[in-house]
Amino acid sequence: MTHFADRLIERAVRIDSRVIVGLDPEVERFPVFLRERLRDEPTEERLEETLFAFNRAIIEVTAPMAVGYKPQAAFYEQYGTAGHIALRRTLMLLRDLEIPIIMDGKRNDVAHTAKAYATAWLATHHPVFKTPNPWRADALTINGYLGKDGVLPFLETNREAGLFVLAKTSNPSSGDLQDLELVSGGTVADKMAQLAEIWGRDSIGAYGYGNVGIVVGATYPETAARLRRVAPHALFLMPGIGAQGGSLQSVTVAAGPQGVGAYAASSRGVMYPFKPEELAGADWRAGLAGRVEEAARTLQTAVSKALVTTASG
Amino acid sequence: MTHFADRLIERAVRIDSRVIVGLDPEVERFPVFLRERLRDEPTEERLEETLFAFNRAIIEVTAPMAVGYKPQAAFYEQYGTAGHIALRRTLMLLRDLEIPIIMDGKRNDVAHTAKAYATAWLATHHPVFKTPNPWRADALTINGYLGKDGVLPFLETNREAGLFVLAKTSNPSSGDLQDLELVSGGTVADKMAQLAEIWGRDSIGAYGYGNVGIVVGATYPETAARLRRVAPHALFLMPGIGAQGGSLQSVTVAAGPQGVGAYAASSRGVMYPFKPEELAGADWRAGLAGRVEEAARTLQTAVSKALVTTASG
Repeated sequence: MTHFADRLIERAVRIDSRVIVGLDPEVERFPVFLRERLRDEPTEERLEETLFAFNRAIIEVTAPMAVGYKPQAAFYEQYGTAGHIALRRTLMLLRDLEIPIIMDGKRNDVAHTAKAYATAWLATHHPVFKTPNPWRADALTINGYLGKDGVLPFLETNREAGLFVLAKTSNPSSGDLQDLELVSGGTVADKMAQLAEIWGRDSIGAYGYGNVGIVVGATYPETAARLRRVAPHALFLMPGIGAQGGSLQSVTVAAGPQGVGAYAASSRGVMYPFKPEELAGADWRAGLAGRVEEAARTLQTAVSKALVTTASG
Repeated sequence: MTHFADRLIERAVRIDSRVIVGLDPEVERFPVFLRERLRDEPTEERLEETLFAFNRAIIEVTAPMAVGYKPQAAFYEQYGTAGHIALRRTLMLLRDLEIPIIMDGKRNDVAHTAKAYATAWLATHHPVFKTPNPWRADALTINGYLGKDGVLPFLETNREAGLFVLAKTSNPSSGDLQDLELVSGGTVADKMAQLAEIWGRDSIGAYGYGNVGIVVGATYPETAARLRRVAPHALFLMPGIGAQGGSLQSVTVAAGPQGVGAYAASSRGVMYPFKPEELAGADWRAGLAGRVEEAARTLQTAVSKALVTTASG
C-alpha cells in the first residue's frame, strides 16, 4: 500500500475524475430479471450471487470514471451472511482492479474497541491466522464523537490507510447537533473538522493532504466553504449529490488550490438510473451498462466542468 | 417481543441485578487450552467454534446475574466470517434463553442507510426471504451525531426495540467534543441526552422509561447525575466499571426513584478474570466458571448494595 491520500489524488488526476461511486446493494431496486431469479430460488447462495453480480456489473461499467468505490456497510449487514460474503467478494474484486476502497462504516468506539474495528477493516492481516485480510479497505469512514482516543487506533493500525471523519453530514437533520454553536467558537461540525485536521497532521502527503479527511454533505455549500478553511489539509468526501439534492458548488468550493481536495460521492444516482422493470430480460447487463455509464459520465463531466469554470473564473 | 424497557426492567427486578454482561471475544485473552487448539488447527471453522464455545461458557455461568448481554460488534467483525457466524450463534443462544440482547454497534447514518442498519439488527424478518432474522437483537447502541432523521428509521423498524444513544462515553478523551459548552446552554453530551429524551417520548412504558436510552460512561459520576435530570425517561447503559475505572456511584445517581433506570455494563472485568495460562487444560470450563461467576456475582452484589445504601441514605 501507499499513502492513501496520495494514491487517491494520483488516480483522480490520471482519470480526470472526482467521483466516488457508492456500492449500496438494495435488492428491491435491482433489475426485475435478478429479482425474479431470486424469488424462484430464495437461498443464501443465490442472494449472495445476486448481490455480487450486480456490484460487479456496476464496477465494470464505472471503473474508468471512479476515483474510488465506497461500499456502505449497512446495505451488506442487512442481508446477513449473503451480504457478508458478497461484500468480501466485492472488496477482493476492487483490490484486483487496484481501485481505492473507502469502506463506509461510520465506525466508532472507545480505544480498545476501536482497535478491533481497525483490525476488521484496515489491518493488512487477519489477527489470528496472519493471512492477508480479505476485508481490508484503503480507507474507512468513522464517527469522531468519542474524540482522540477513539480515532488513534485506526491511525496506528495502518499508517497508510485513510480515514474520513464525519463533520457535516448530508441529511436534513444534520443540524440537530452539528450546527450548534460552541461557546469556544464555531459549530460542532467546525470542531470536528478542526480535530480531524489535527489528527491528520502527521500524515501529510505529496499533495499537501493528510490521511485524515472529513465527510461533508454536498447539500450544504456554505458549510463546505467554511470547513475547507478549518481543515485545509483534509480530503473532503462529499455525499448528497443526486438523490439528496446536493450541489456541484459544494465540491468546487472545497476542492482547494490544486482542485484535488474534494470528491463527490454518489450511490443511488449512479447505481440505479433505471426502473427495475426496464431490465426484465437475461440481457439486463447491457441495459444497465448504458444507463449506468451515462449517469457516471454525466456526473464526472459536471464536476470536472464546474472545477474548470471555478479555476478560470 | 414486548416493550424493550419494560422487559429489561422486569428481568432486573426479578433477578435483583443491574448488570449487563459484555460479550467481546478476544482470542489473545482466551484460555491457553483454546488458543493451542486453534494454533494446531488454524481454520475458520475452528475459530468460529472457539469464539462460540467461549461465549457459551460465559453465558452459562453469568445468566443468573445478567439482566442482558451486550455483544460488541467490533470484536466479531475483526474475525471476519468466523466472527460473523459465531455472533449469529451467540444471538440465537441468547434468544433461546430469553435474555435481552443489546447489540453494541454504535451504528449511525443518514435515514435511508440507517433503515438498512435497522433492518440488519432490529427487524424481525429477513428483508428478502421474510424468514425470522437470526441477527435480531432487542436493542442497539447508536450514535446520534446525525440527528433525528438518522434515528427515526431505527424506531420505525421495530416499535418494541430499544436504542441507546451515545451521550457521554466512558473513554478519557470523550470530552474532546462531548464536554464542550453550547451557546444555547449545556454541553454536547447534554444536548444528545435531551434529544434522546425527546426521541423516546412516544414509547414510555409501564415503569416510566422509554425505549430510547442513553450511553453514559460510569467513569463520569457528575455527568451521570446531570444527564439523569436532562433525560428522566431514558434508561442509562453505563460501561466503564472495572477495566476503565468507573464508579458504582455513577450507577446509583442515575438509577432513578425506583432504582431501575441505570445498568452497569461490564465486559473485560467479567469475561476475563483470569490469565490465559491459568486455564491450560481440557477442563478450562470449570476453572473459568468459578472465576467468572465470582466476578459477575461481585459486581452484581456491589451494585445492588450501593443502590440499597443510596435508597436508604
